[in-house]
Amino acid sequence: MPDNKTERWLDDQEVAAGNGLLHRRAFVTGSAALAAAMSGYALSDAADAAPLPVEPWMKYPTADGLTPYGQPSRFEKHVVRGGINRQAGNPPGLGSIRTPLHMLNGTITPNGLHFVRLHSGVPDIDPDKHKLLIHGLVERPLIFTLDALACYPMESRIYFLECGGNSQTLYQKDPIKAGVTRIHGQVCCSDWTGVRVSTLLEETGVKPNAKWIVAEGADAAGMARSVPLSKIMDDALIALYQNGERLRPENGYPMRLLLPGYQGNAQVKYLRRIKVTEGPTHTRDETSRYSIARPDGTTLQFFLVLEAKSVITQPAPELKLQGPGLYKITGLAWSGRGRGIVRKVEVSADGGKSWAEAAIQSQVLPKALARFQMLWRWDGRPAILQSRATDDTGYVQWTRDAMIAERGLTGNYHSNCISSWAVNEKGEVSHVYA
Amino acid sequence: MPDNKTERWLDDQEVAAGNGLLHRRAFVTGSAALAAAMSGYALSDAADAAPLPVEPWMKYPTADGLTPYGQPSRFEKHVVRGGINRQAGNPPGLGSIRTPLHMLNGTITPNGLHFVRLHSGVPDIDPDKHKLLIHGLVERPLIFTLDALACYPMESRIYFLECGGNSQTLYQKDPIKAGVTRIHGQVCCSDWTGVRVSTLLEETGVKPNAKWIVAEGADAAGMARSVPLSKIMDDALIALYQNGERLRPENGYPMRLLLPGYQGNAQVKYLRRIKVTEGPTHTRDETSRYSIARPDGTTLQFFLVLEAKSVITQPAPELKLQGPGLYKITGLAWSGRGRGIVRKVEVSADGGKSWAEAAIQSQVLPKALARFQMLWRWDGRPAILQSRATDDTGYVQWTRDAMIAERGLTGNYHSNCISSWAVNEKGEVSHVYA
Repeated sequence: MPDNKTERWLDDQEVAAGNGLLHRRAFVTGSAALAAAMSGYALSDAADAAPLPVEPWMKYPTADGLTPYGQPSRFEKHVVRGGINRQAGNPPGLGSIRTPLHMLNGTITPNGLHFVRLHSGVPDIDPDKHKLLIHGLVERPLIFTLDALACYPMESRIYFLECGGNSQTLYQKDPIKAGVTRIHGQVCCSDWTGVRVSTLLEETGVKPNAKWIVAEGADAAGMARSVPLSKIMDDALIALYQNGERLRPENGYPMRLLLPGYQGNAQVKYLRRIKVTEGPTHTRDETSRYSIARPDGTTLQFFLVLEAKSVITQPAPELKLQGPGLYKITGLAWSGRGRGIVRKVEVSADGGKSWAEAAIQSQVLPKALARFQMLWRWDGRPAILQSRATDDTGYVQWTRDAMIAERGLTGNYHSNCISSWAVNEKGEVSHVYA
Repeated sequence: MPDNKTERWLDDQEVAAGNGLLHRRAFVTGSAALAAAMSGYALSDAADAAPLPVEPWMKYPTADGLTPYGQPSRFEKHVVRGGINRQAGNPPGLGSIRTPLHMLNGTITPNGLHFVRLHSGVPDIDPDKHKLLIHGLVERPLIFTLDALACYPMESRIYFLECGGNSQTLYQKDPIKAGVTRIHGQVCCSDWTGVRVSTLLEETGVKPNAKWIVAEGADAAGMARSVPLSKIMDDALIALYQNGERLRPENGYPMRLLLPGYQGNAQVKYLRRIKVTEGPTHTRDETSRYSIARPDGTTLQFFLVLEAKSVITQPAPELKLQGPGLYKITGLAWSGRGRGIVRKVEVSADGGKSWAEAAIQSQVLPKALARFQMLWRWDGRPAILQSRATDDTGYVQWTRDAMIAERGLTGNYHSNCISSWAVNEKGEVSHVYA
């Protein structure tokens, strides 16, 4: 329980926004007595505690652990992908599974927990047989094997990857009863390594009337998407490695298109073909899906840049608060706009009436996830937690009301509005509209 | 085979150092016809090739792949840790297994392939029972559970981690017959998230005469190491997450000390105790090991900063060259000195007689791995490949001769000298002294 020193420290903290949000300086200058202020947590004065016990694992040497490929601790078996979505009537292999954001920290996503969105299962591709064809409006069509690509200069960059349909349920009339995994768990961040597509197009040459490409995957869905040539020339990669090792099968093995800051689906997995074209191809997956259906009946096609967004990952519906006290709020922020730099993340504990700037705990890299944190003194009464990100273009994450006003309930994609967690008197957290 | 255009391109390239090293501008401005110049690789003109075959994996939807925790492709089963070292007569659980650097790219190491160095096996720690005690020269000794640590502000940073004994065999009189995994595979890089130790010491208070700490692990070896308090206050973390998920058992689950740029062994795994002290404790593992034994019989203790170093990971003894032609050389560079920024990596193909600056393909972050690449036109004659790194303090990686002159053959630790790969007429690569 808080002692007098702790109470004094708490009373000294600047309240930066309504309902108990502390100024981020509390992290920098005032952590003394912080632990004692954290109600419900087991912190003991060593003087009061028995001597540290010698646990069984200290007494005997154990299995030597020199295994070829390591796995998580058996105590972390609950840290798995979830929020699975296989709709009844879907063809086989159509669905998604998501990243358990509330159990992770930092910004890099371990490969085993990267979200997965599949349109026709995971193709079991033999990398020695897989080829990439570049053709269309080029001087010299070429076929690249994996060995050929290995010769080229490569680029390694840390980029977020988000499904265009992430947080899609916020377009629904009523908030779904689900947690952060199911609602927002289709965003991840990895160190991607591969060959710039522009390097390969220098090999093939590009004809003057070329303005777009269409990329096609080798899955049974034959996923195909159009991308402006300007984006391809700017920073697109043929990604071959994800966090140092070859791409995982669910994420595009042996190669995928990587379009930093663009919707995930356009970053075609199992890439087998790039055709250089005059205009967009209007493939099935960019007409019937992955475009925004507007209230006036028109469709906003080729809206590919993911705009600034943030999500609170702790607390979340999966995590209950243990009574009134001081809590740490943490979450992720990102943007595909401009340079993709997160300039600021603000947090509200009163449903958006007042905001305080959060501390950023990670490095801030272009078009990568950034992690924020904030201290919150919860008084035990109902509260609404929100976060909003601002990027280097000045774009500020919008409210759900603003998003629905512009896009209607049919928008379906690029759901980047402010998202709300309600905390009730019992400390239970739920997804609400506010 | 190279055509005339390719030959002209090759002839136009500036040779930046002896024996065929091309200027790094070749990567930026001149990749046209690069592929055709790469001998031995399968690049086809699409016009000459049959249409892209429709492989079996395109014809039918396959397993849906929505698995709780993903694994690498079955075609990547050979990408595993290796260079295992369990010496005869060692007690059980003493040994190491290393990262297959020649098969990876980028800078982040996937958790399953992080090198492992164990002194008494992997303790099977129940995180709910594990505690961290901070005591000694403090005002108020405290015990922290994992739940208590979760309340604190955290920091996420990408840092390299290298065993103090990595590349140790370069102190031997003769070069060992081994590859890059066995010789240099004890260096990795991860996104580490945890609580700053300084935050916890603010809670306990530190007495004025405190100048060092000793950290103790909960493994059966009772690993214990002394660290200057100045380093602890500067940037030391209690690391809880590695690339987003909880630490792996072999790497310190549930918590380890993280000392950016310091030798790995001092970054005590399974951390259970930090005692604040006046001076170093002279534990077994900092007197009998992890100190540099000098030729005059004295020992250089508490030499903890890892100085600038680089390693060529491709080609390597594990990878054979397929005849004369144009090759890409790539590798890793890092430094624990100063701000830990890699300023420059140079490559030599003539055993150090001449050097050319390599291109850096990754982001350069403080005390993190950086990846370099370079084009090399191999004429089919014997060659010696080397790399050397320079950091932001101006420190330049030294030669093996210089290292041995100063430290003798008994140095054992912090082997950061220039390392050499010899290429023979058959394209075989071997570890040599040069």
